[in-house]
Amino acid sequence: MKLVCYRDGGQERLGVVEGDSVRRLSGHDGDLVSLIENYDALRSGLKADGEATPLDNVELLAPIPRPRRNIFCVGKNYSEHAREFAGSGYEAGATTDVDEFPAVFTKPASTVIASGQDVDLHADITDSVDYEVELTLIIGKGGKNIPAEKAHEHIWGYTIINDVTARDRQKQHKQWFLGKSLDSFCPMGPFAVTADEVTSEDLDLQTWVNGETRQKANTRDLIFDIPSLVATISAGLTLVPGDLIATGTPAGVGIGFNPPKFLKSGDVVEMEITGLGRLKNTFR
Amino acid sequence: MKLVCYRDGGQERLGVVEGDSVRRLSGHDGDLVSLIENYDALRSGLKADGEATPLDNVELLAPIPRPRRNIFCVGKNYSEHAREFAGSGYEAGATTDVDEFPAVFTKPASTVIASGQDVDLHADITDSVDYEVELTLIIGKGGKNIPAEKAHEHIWGYTIINDVTARDRQKQHKQWFLGKSLDSFCPMGPFAVTADEVTSEDLDLQTWVNGETRQKANTRDLIFDIPSLVATISAGLTLVPGDLIATGTPAGVGIGFNPPKFLKSGDVVEMEITGLGRLKNTFR
Repeated sequence: MKLVCYRDGGQERLGVVEGDSVRRLSGHDGDLVSLIENYDALRSGLKADGEATPLDNVELLAPIPRPRRNIFCVGKNYSEHAREFAGSGYEAGATTDVDEFPAVFTKPASTVIASGQDVDLHADITDSVDYEVELTLIIGKGGKNIPAEKAHEHIWGYTIINDVTARDRQKQHKQWFLGKSLDSFCPMGPFAVTADEVTSEDLDLQTWVNGETRQKANTRDLIFDIPSLVATISAGLTLVPGDLIATGTPAGVGIGFNPPKFLKSGDVVEMEITGLGRLKNTFR
Repeated sequence: MKLVCYRDGGQERLGVVEGDSVRRLSGHDGDLVSLIENYDALRSGLKADGEATPLDNVELLAPIPRPRRNIFCVGKNYSEHAREFAGSGYEAGATTDVDEFPAVFTKPASTVIASGQDVDLHADITDSVDYEVELTLIIGKGGKNIPAEKAHEHIWGYTIINDVTARDRQKQHKQWFLGKSLDSFCPMGPFAVTADEVTSEDLDLQTWVNGETRQKANTRDLIFDIPSLVATISAGLTLVPGDLIATGTPAGVGIGFNPPKFLKSGDVVEMEITGLGRLKNTFR
């Protein structure tokens, strides 16, 4: 099932995507997190209802517009990107390209915006805003110490996140949190797609800036694969339904160029991952 | 006003601390975050009510048992500690003792426990658990781009946090989040004290492990002072009422010793900050 969250007459609703249209989801009245929390019970009663509206005619929200806690994010998880980052001069304390353990940090929920909304460049604070397309896991069943071989039982579905980053702040503060956490720095969506429809180990990711291809990769090149990320993050840390884990970005970000290609006002960034739709945002 | 959150007949309540006793808070029925959100309106109607109960006889909860988002934490914010950390071998990519910009990371709300509750050593995951006493700001009025000279207008009050850390994971993953975020790794409290009763620039901090003094410092030695931390973190990132900012720990943590003194099962860690009470937890 391919779901969107959208605004309909002032109300937030969940809708079912069918081709280029959306119909109202019936069988559940709350938001996506409450759907996920009760998914086993609700599942058989969920269906698309009412008239089909073209997706272009609805005001999309992020699939989870207000995550219940910070989004978990993984860094340096594609080899070519790890090399471009270490070589860019923007990684504080860079010692190796590919690390032995994944780097994990967070972005607050207040960074989340939808496809179609503008990202604030925060020009008073940073002059080095960059994009990062990332396959993002949506946790279903919570748990702690989840073994890698059971990780997929805990993944409800997938979405796209643009892990927007202020490179100067990422470098200055060494810990990446502040550079990743400016308001509007987490475009998410457009769809939340249930795991049964996604072959997560073989998805193409692509990013265009003003129509020019910048990132092009496949999730089979993840250094730390999805099961191992779930195992590593849930070790001693209880995951809960609706948790989001962004799995890292491939090569082709702005700092991968010499000189770096940072985003400027009016730039349009589009991202696609196989089956998860196209996330499109203008930077201002 | 010195407040606690405690369990009373199965219900969570706020209480007013008077000496070694607590009386029920009247004038507000919700939790501390909802009190803070409406503080200007509620303030004049708040009072201690009913019988005084000895503090030792109530089951304390953390002042904010379920923060609405991850706790903001500052690292390397006392010079002597910055030196002991850089010299310990546990700082990944250490290049300088004292950094030019503060390191900021987060701990999820799921780490929070109360004074009197046990900290889980997670012996299956880590063998290097350490303590860190930290003065912690409780944000009142939210805002973004808060200038340092107005920072104190946004601080509702203060509490103590023990920023418990698994040093091996902090080092391995380079980003500190995972090493800081194991379940139960954020003892908080015992009190939340309103800003009018706290001289935050001149507070003694002290930590004892099994009665032996380990940390002993004063907040006047903060490298990045409280107003500058609020300004730095709120730059482009909207703070909201109830946000918590742990301001960093002074020297004397376990990795400051050679060999390091990590916590072991049965160890009792007690922390005091002037006027904010004593936070006491056993590690198991």
